[in-house]
Amino acid sequence: MTATIPGYTFGTSQAARSPLSAADLDLLKKTVLLDDEDLRYLRMSAEVLRDQVEELLDVWYGFVAANPHLLHFFTGVSDGQPVGAYLDAVRKRFGQWVLDTAAAAYDQAWLDYQHEIGLRHHRAKKNQTDAVAAVPHINYRYLPTLVYPITATLKPFLARKGHSAEEVKRMHQAWLKSVLLQVTLWSYPYVRDGDF
Amino acid sequence: MTATIPGYTFGTSQAARSPLSAADLDLLKKTVLLDDEDLRYLRMSAEVLRDQVEELLDVWYGFVAANPHLLHFFTGVSDGQPVGAYLDAVRKRFGQWVLDTAAAAYDQAWLDYQHEIGLRHHRAKKNQTDAVAAVPHINYRYLPTLVYPITATLKPFLARKGHSAEEVKRMHQAWLKSVLLQVTLWSYPYVRDGDF
Repeated sequence: MTATIPGYTFGTSQAARSPLSAADLDLLKKTVLLDDEDLRYLRMSAEVLRDQVEELLDVWYGFVAANPHLLHFFTGVSDGQPVGAYLDAVRKRFGQWVLDTAAAAYDQAWLDYQHEIGLRHHRAKKNQTDAVAAVPHINYRYLPTLVYPITATLKPFLARKGHSAEEVKRMHQAWLKSVLLQVTLWSYPYVRDGDF
Repeated sequence: MTATIPGYTFGTSQAARSPLSAADLDLLKKTVLLDDEDLRYLRMSAEVLRDQVEELLDVWYGFVAANPHLLHFFTGVSDGQPVGAYLDAVRKRFGQWVLDTAAAAYDQAWLDYQHEIGLRHHRAKKNQTDAVAAVPHINYRYLPTLVYPITATLKPFLARKGHSAEEVKRMHQAWLKSVLLQVTLWSYPYVRDGDF
Protein backbone atom coordinates (compact mmCIF):
# COMPACT_ATOMS: atom_id res chain seq x y z
CA MET A 1 0.00 0.00 0.00
CA THR A 2 2.77 2.45 0.89
CA ALA A 3 4.22 1.96 -2.60
CA THR A 4 1.25 3.98 -3.87
CA ILE A 5 2.11 7.08 -1.82
CA PRO A 6 4.05 9.57 -3.96
CA GLY A 7 7.20 10.85 -2.27
CA TYR A 8 7.03 8.42 0.63
CA THR A 9 10.66 7.30 0.86
CA PHE A 10 10.77 5.84 4.39
CA GLY A 11 13.33 3.03 4.54
CA THR A 12 14.72 3.73 1.06
CA SER A 13 18.03 5.15 -0.14
CA GLN A 14 16.13 8.22 -1.36
CA ALA A 15 15.47 9.40 2.18
CA ALA A 16 18.04 11.71 3.80
CA ARG A 17 20.43 10.34 6.43
CA SER A 18 19.99 11.70 9.91
CA PRO A 19 22.92 13.69 11.31
CA LEU A 20 22.09 12.16 14.71
CA SER A 21 23.36 8.89 16.14
CA ALA A 22 21.47 6.13 17.91
CA ALA A 23 23.08 7.40 21.14
CA ASP A 24 21.72 10.90 20.46
CA LEU A 25 18.26 9.41 19.96
CA ASP A 26 18.54 7.48 23.23
CA LEU A 27 19.27 10.65 25.18
CA LEU A 28 16.35 12.43 23.53
CA LYS A 29 14.03 9.54 24.43
CA LYS A 30 15.27 9.71 28.03
CA THR A 31 14.64 13.45 28.11
CA VAL A 32 11.09 13.27 26.75
CA LEU A 33 10.45 10.17 28.94
CA LEU A 34 9.59 7.94 25.97
CA ASP A 35 10.20 4.36 27.12
CA ASP A 36 9.28 0.82 26.06
CA GLU A 37 5.94 1.10 27.83
CA ASP A 38 5.11 4.10 25.65
CA LEU A 39 6.08 2.17 22.52
CA ARG A 40 3.63 -0.51 23.60
CA TYR A 41 0.85 2.07 23.93
CA LEU A 42 1.75 3.60 20.58
CA ARG A 43 1.34 0.15 19.01
CA MET A 44 -2.00 -0.19 20.77
CA SER A 45 -2.96 3.10 19.13
CA ALA A 46 -2.13 1.67 15.70
CA GLU A 47 -5.04 -0.75 15.98
CA VAL A 48 -7.29 2.02 17.28
CA LEU A 49 -6.44 4.53 14.59
CA ARG A 50 -6.03 2.35 11.49
CA ASP A 51 -9.61 2.74 10.21
CA GLN A 52 -9.98 6.32 11.48
CA VAL A 53 -7.05 7.93 9.67
CA GLU A 54 -9.13 9.69 7.02
CA GLU A 55 -11.49 11.16 9.61
CA LEU A 56 -8.53 12.31 11.70
CA LEU A 57 -6.99 13.96 8.64
CA ASP A 58 -10.30 15.71 8.02
CA VAL A 59 -10.01 17.27 11.48
CA TRP A 60 -6.39 18.31 11.00
CA TYR A 61 -6.93 19.66 7.49
CA GLY A 62 -10.01 21.47 8.79
CA PHE A 63 -7.86 23.19 11.41
CA VAL A 64 -5.32 24.26 8.80
CA ALA A 65 -8.04 25.43 6.42
CA ALA A 66 -9.64 27.49 9.21
CA ASN A 67 -6.36 29.29 9.91
CA PRO A 68 -5.18 31.41 6.95
CA HIS A 69 -1.73 31.81 8.53
CA LEU A 70 -1.32 28.01 8.35
CA LEU A 71 -3.07 27.39 5.03
CA HIS A 72 -0.60 29.94 3.66
CA PHE A 73 2.11 27.29 3.52
CA PHE A 74 0.04 25.27 1.05
CA THR A 75 -0.62 28.22 -1.26
CA GLY A 76 1.04 29.08 -4.55
CA VAL A 77 3.75 31.71 -4.72
CA SER A 78 2.24 33.28 -7.83
CA ASP A 79 -1.48 33.38 -7.04
CA GLY A 80 -1.78 32.84 -3.27
CA GLN A 81 -4.33 30.08 -3.85
CA PRO A 82 -4.20 26.64 -2.18
CA VAL A 83 -2.32 24.14 -4.34
CA GLY A 84 -4.69 21.18 -4.56
CA ALA A 85 -2.17 18.64 -5.82
CA TYR A 86 0.18 19.58 -2.97
CA LEU A 87 -2.54 19.32 -0.31
CA ASP A 88 -3.53 15.89 -1.69
CA ALA A 89 0.01 14.52 -1.85
CA VAL A 90 0.88 15.73 1.65
CA ARG A 91 -2.37 14.26 2.96
CA LYS A 92 -1.43 10.77 1.77
CA ARG A 93 1.92 10.97 3.50
CA PHE A 94 0.33 12.52 6.60
CA GLY A 95 -1.96 9.50 6.88
CA GLN A 96 1.00 7.16 6.60
CA TRP A 97 2.80 9.25 9.23
CA VAL A 98 0.02 8.43 11.69
CA LEU A 99 0.60 4.72 11.14
CA ASP A 100 4.39 5.08 11.22
CA THR A 101 4.25 7.00 14.49
CA ALA A 102 2.05 4.32 16.00
CA ALA A 103 4.25 1.51 14.65
CA ALA A 104 6.94 2.97 16.92
CA ALA A 105 10.00 1.18 15.60
CA TYR A 106 12.15 4.28 16.16
CA ASP A 107 15.17 2.64 14.51
CA GLN A 108 17.75 4.13 12.13
CA ALA A 109 15.36 4.12 9.14
CA TRP A 110 12.80 5.99 11.24
CA LEU A 111 15.44 8.46 12.48
CA ASP A 112 16.58 9.07 8.90
CA TYR A 113 13.05 9.68 7.69
CA GLN A 114 12.43 12.24 10.44
CA HIS A 115 15.33 14.21 9.01
CA GLU A 116 13.77 13.92 5.56
CA ILE A 117 10.47 15.24 6.96
CA GLY A 118 12.30 18.19 8.56
CA LEU A 119 13.99 19.06 5.27
CA ARG A 120 10.61 19.04 3.52
CA HIS A 121 9.25 21.64 5.93
CA HIS A 122 12.31 23.85 5.57
CA ARG A 123 13.34 25.90 2.54
CA ALA A 124 16.10 23.33 1.98
CA LYS A 125 13.64 20.93 0.36
CA LYS A 126 10.06 22.22 0.63
CA ASN A 127 7.98 21.65 -2.53
CA GLN A 128 10.65 19.55 -4.25
CA THR A 129 9.09 16.17 -3.46
CA ASP A 130 5.83 17.15 -5.13
CA ALA A 131 7.30 19.52 -7.73
CA VAL A 132 4.95 22.33 -6.73
CA ALA A 133 5.41 26.10 -6.64
CA ALA A 134 4.00 26.73 -3.16
CA VAL A 135 5.51 29.19 -0.67
CA PRO A 136 9.12 28.16 -0.14
CA HIS A 137 9.33 27.63 3.61
CA ILE A 138 7.27 26.74 6.66
CA ASN A 139 8.19 29.06 9.50
CA TYR A 140 9.83 27.31 12.42
CA ARG A 141 7.46 28.88 14.94
CA TYR A 142 4.56 26.70 13.80
CA LEU A 143 6.31 23.37 14.31
CA PRO A 144 6.39 23.24 18.14
CA THR A 145 3.12 25.15 18.53
CA LEU A 146 1.23 22.67 16.30
CA VAL A 147 2.11 19.87 18.73
CA TYR A 148 -0.81 20.91 20.88
CA PRO A 149 -3.69 20.89 18.35
CA ILE A 150 -2.37 17.74 16.66
CA THR A 151 -2.23 15.72 19.88
CA ALA A 152 -5.31 17.24 21.56
CA THR A 153 -7.58 16.51 18.60
CA LEU A 154 -6.23 12.97 18.45
CA LYS A 155 -7.43 12.05 21.92
CA PRO A 156 -11.15 11.52 21.17
CA PHE A 157 -10.18 9.13 18.35
CA LEU A 158 -8.13 7.07 20.80
CA ALA A 159 -11.20 6.71 23.03
CA ARG A 160 -13.50 5.29 20.36
CA LYS A 161 -12.61 1.62 20.49
CA GLY A 162 -13.61 0.72 24.00
CA HIS A 163 -10.27 1.04 25.78
CA SER A 164 -10.20 2.03 29.45
CA ALA A 165 -9.72 5.67 30.43
CA GLU A 166 -6.25 4.72 31.69
CA GLU A 167 -5.31 3.10 28.36
CA VAL A 168 -6.58 6.08 26.40
CA LYS A 169 -4.58 8.40 28.63
CA ARG A 170 -1.43 6.29 28.20
CA MET A 171 -1.83 6.17 24.42
CA HIS A 172 -2.35 9.91 24.33
CA GLN A 173 0.69 10.65 26.51
CA ALA A 174 2.85 8.36 24.38
CA TRP A 175 1.70 10.26 21.29
CA LEU A 176 2.51 13.59 22.92
CA LYS A 177 6.02 12.39 23.77
CA SER A 178 6.53 11.02 20.28
CA VAL A 179 5.32 14.16 18.51
CA LEU A 180 7.53 16.35 20.73
CA LEU A 181 10.47 14.12 19.85
CA GLN A 182 9.64 14.25 16.15
CA VAL A 183 9.22 18.01 16.05
CA THR A 184 12.62 18.27 17.74
CA LEU A 185 14.16 16.09 15.01
CA TRP A 186 12.34 17.98 12.23
CA SER A 187 13.84 21.24 13.55
CA TYR A 188 17.39 20.23 12.67
CA PRO A 189 17.54 22.08 9.31
CA TYR A 190 16.24 25.23 10.99
CA VAL A 191 18.87 25.41 13.72
CA ARG A 192 22.19 27.21 13.30
CA ASP A 193 25.26 25.05 12.70
CA GLY A 194 26.50 23.66 16.00
CA ASP A 195 23.50 24.81 18.04
CA PHE A 196 21.32 21.71 17.77
CA MET B 1 10.25 39.93 46.55
CA THR B 2 11.30 39.73 42.90
CA ALA B 3 13.81 42.52 43.56
CA THR B 4 15.83 39.97 45.50
CA ILE B 5 16.24 37.59 42.53
CA PRO B 6 19.62 38.19 40.86
CA GLY B 7 19.38 38.58 37.09
CA TYR B 8 15.58 38.72 37.05
CA THR B 9 15.02 41.61 34.62
CA PHE B 10 11.36 41.03 33.63
CA GLY B 11 9.72 44.36 32.83
CA THR B 12 12.96 46.34 32.98
CA SER B 13 15.06 48.03 30.32
CA GLN B 14 17.77 45.44 30.96
CA ALA B 15 15.71 42.68 29.36
CA ALA B 16 16.10 42.08 25.63
CA ARG B 17 13.43 43.28 23.22
CA SER B 18 11.52 40.58 21.40
CA PRO B 19 11.94 40.52 17.61
CA LEU B 20 8.26 39.45 17.42
CA SER B 21 5.22 41.71 17.27
CA ALA B 22 1.95 41.48 19.19
CA ALA B 23 0.38 40.24 15.93
CA ASP B 24 2.99 37.45 15.72
CA LEU B 25 2.15 36.45 19.28
CA ASP B 26 -1.57 36.40 18.49
CA LEU B 27 -1.03 33.95 15.63
CA LEU B 28 1.11 31.74 17.83
CA LYS B 29 -1.58 31.73 20.52
CA LYS B 30 -4.16 30.79 17.88
CA THR B 31 -1.94 27.96 16.66
CA VAL B 32 -1.29 26.48 20.09
CA LEU B 33 -4.99 27.07 21.01
CA LEU B 34 -4.16 29.27 23.99
CA ASP B 35 -7.22 31.44 24.62
CA ASP B 36 -8.70 33.60 27.40
CA GLU B 37 -10.18 30.53 29.07
CA ASP B 38 -6.67 29.08 29.34
CA LEU B 39 -5.38 32.30 30.85
CA ARG B 40 -8.10 32.01 33.47
CA TYR B 41 -6.97 28.47 34.32
CA LEU B 42 -3.35 29.57 34.43
CA ARG B 43 -4.31 32.21 36.99
CA MET B 44 -6.17 29.54 38.94
CA SER B 45 -2.92 27.58 38.95
CA ALA B 46 -1.08 30.54 40.47
CA GLU B 47 -3.06 30.14 43.68
CA VAL B 48 -2.52 26.39 43.62
CA LEU B 49 1.21 26.52 43.02
CA ARG B 50 2.28 29.55 45.06
CA ASP B 51 3.21 27.65 48.22
CA GLN B 52 4.43 24.55 46.33
CA VAL B 53 7.09 26.17 44.15
CA GLU B 54 10.08 24.94 46.16
CA GLU B 55 8.79 21.37 46.18
CA LEU B 56 8.15 21.56 42.43
CA LEU B 57 11.67 22.83 41.85
CA ASP B 58 12.98 19.91 43.92
CA VAL B 59 11.29 17.54 41.45
CA TRP B 60 12.63 19.37 38.39
CA TYR B 61 16.13 19.74 39.77
CA GLY B 62 16.02 16.08 40.78
CA PHE B 63 15.23 15.15 37.18
CA VAL B 64 18.14 17.23 35.88
CA ALA B 65 20.49 15.84 38.52
CA ALA B 66 19.50 12.28 37.59
CA ASN B 67 20.34 12.88 33.93
CA PRO B 68 24.04 13.59 33.39
CA HIS B 69 23.37 14.79 29.82
CA LEU B 70 21.16 17.55 31.30
CA LEU B 71 23.21 18.32 34.43
CA HIS B 72 26.07 18.85 31.96
CA PHE B 73 24.74 22.32 31.10
CA PHE B 74 25.23 23.41 34.71
CA THR B 75 28.80 22.14 34.93
CA GLY B 76 32.01 24.09 34.71
CA VAL B 77 34.05 24.19 31.51
CA SER B 78 37.30 23.63 33.35
CA ASP B 79 36.45 20.89 35.85
CA GLY B 80 33.16 19.36 34.64
CA GLN B 81 31.68 19.80 38.12
CA PRO B 82 28.23 21.31 38.81
CA VAL B 83 28.51 25.06 39.45
CA GLY B 84 26.63 25.56 42.71
CA ALA B 85 26.22 29.32 42.45
CA TYR B 86 24.81 28.92 38.94
CA LEU B 87 22.35 26.20 39.98
CA ASP B 88 21.19 28.37 42.89
CA ALA B 89 20.75 31.55 40.84
CA VAL B 90 18.85 29.74 38.07
CA ARG B 91 16.66 28.07 40.66
CA LYS B 92 15.47 31.40 42.03
CA ARG B 93 14.53 32.60 38.57
CA PHE B 94 12.97 29.24 37.74
CA GLY B 95 10.66 29.61 40.73
CA GLN B 96 9.68 33.09 39.63
CA TRP B 97 9.09 31.69 36.11
CA VAL B 98 6.43 29.38 37.55
CA LEU B 99 4.59 32.36 39.02
CA ASP B 100 5.06 34.46 35.87
CA THR B 101 3.71 31.68 33.66
CA ALA B 102 0.70 31.33 35.91
CA ALA B 103 0.16 35.11 36.06
CA ALA B 104 -0.45 34.85 32.31
CA ALA B 105 -0.31 38.50 31.34
CA TYR B 106 1.37 37.63 28.03
CA ASP B 107 1.89 41.29 27.16
CA GLN B 108 4.87 43.03 25.55
CA ALA B 109 7.00 42.87 28.73
CA TRP B 110 6.32 39.14 28.94
CA LEU B 111 7.13 38.65 25.25
CA ASP B 112 10.38 40.57 25.66
CA TYR B 113 11.40 38.53 28.67
CA GLN B 114 10.82 35.28 26.79
CA HIS B 115 13.41 36.47 24.29
CA GLU B 116 15.77 37.21 27.16
CA ILE B 117 15.24 33.68 28.49
CA GLY B 118 16.00 32.24 25.05
CA LEU B 119 19.24 34.20 24.81
CA ARG B 120 20.29 32.90 28.23
CA HIS B 121 19.93 29.30 27.04
CA HIS B 122 21.84 29.96 23.83
CA ARG B 123 25.57 30.65 23.46
CA ALA B 124 24.62 34.28 22.72
CA LYS B 125 24.17 34.99 26.43
CA LYS B 126 24.47 31.82 28.51
CA ASN B 127 26.40 32.30 31.79
CA GLN B 128 26.65 36.08 31.41
CA THR B 129 23.79 36.90 33.78
CA ASP B 130 25.42 34.96 36.62
CA ALA B 131 29.04 35.55 35.57
CA VAL B 132 29.83 31.84 35.69
CA ALA B 133 32.16 29.68 33.59
CA ALA B 134 29.74 26.84 32.87
CA VAL B 135 29.47 25.09 29.48
CA PRO B 136 28.74 27.78 26.91
CA HIS B 137 25.49 26.56 25.31
CA ILE B 138 22.39 24.47 25.95
CA ASN B 139 21.71 22.29 22.95
CA TYR B 140 18.49 23.13 21.16
CA ARG B 141 17.33 19.52 21.18
CA TYR B 142 16.61 19.61 24.92
CA LEU B 143 14.28 22.60 24.81
CA PRO B 144 11.23 21.01 23.12
CA THR B 145 11.84 17.59 24.62
CA LEU B 146 11.86 18.97 28.18
CA VAL B 147 8.31 20.23 27.67
CA TYR B 148 7.04 16.77 28.52
CA PRO B 149 8.76 16.12 31.87
CA ILE B 150 8.20 19.70 33.02
CA THR B 151 4.46 19.64 32.38
CA ALA B 152 3.85 16.00 33.34
CA THR B 153 5.50 16.37 36.75
CA LEU B 154 3.52 19.55 37.35
CA LYS B 155 0.14 17.83 37.14
CA PRO B 156 0.09 16.17 40.61
CA PHE B 157 0.86 19.55 42.19
CA LEU B 158 -2.16 21.06 40.43
CA ALA B 159 -4.37 18.38 41.96
CA ARG B 160 -3.39 19.02 45.59
CA LYS B 161 -5.70 21.89 46.47
CA GLY B 162 -9.08 20.26 46.10
CA HIS B 163 -9.98 21.35 42.56
CA SER B 164 -12.19 19.12 40.44
CA ALA B 165 -10.63 16.67 37.99
CA GLU B 166 -11.91 18.88 35.17
CA GLU B 167 -10.29 21.99 36.66
CA VAL B 168 -6.99 20.15 37.18
CA LYS B 169 -7.11 18.94 33.58
CA ARG B 170 -7.83 22.44 32.29
CA MET B 171 -5.00 23.97 34.33
CA HIS B 172 -2.63 21.28 33.10
CA GLN B 173 -3.61 21.74 29.44
CA ALA B 174 -3.22 25.51 29.74
CA TRP B 175 0.27 24.96 31.15
CA LEU B 176 1.16 22.61 28.31
CA LYS B 177 0.06 25.20 25.74
CA SER B 178 1.94 27.95 27.53
CA VAL B 179 5.17 25.98 27.84
CA LEU B 180 5.01 24.97 24.16
CA LEU B 181 4.55 28.63 23.26
CA GLN B 182 7.42 29.69 25.51
CA VAL B 183 9.82 27.06 24.18
CA THR B 184 8.96 28.27 20.68
CA LEU B 185 9.83 31.84 21.68
CA TRP B 186 13.02 30.74 23.47
CA SER B 187 14.16 29.02 20.28
CA TYR B 188 14.51 32.27 18.36
CA PRO B 189 18.28 32.70 18.90
CA TYR B 190 18.84 29.11 17.75
CA VAL B 191 17.05 29.42 14.42
CA ARG B 192 18.78 30.53 11.22
CA ASP B 193 18.15 34.09 10.07
CA GLY B 194 14.82 34.30 8.28
CA ASP B 195 13.71 30.78 9.17
CA PHE B 196 11.80 31.50 12.38
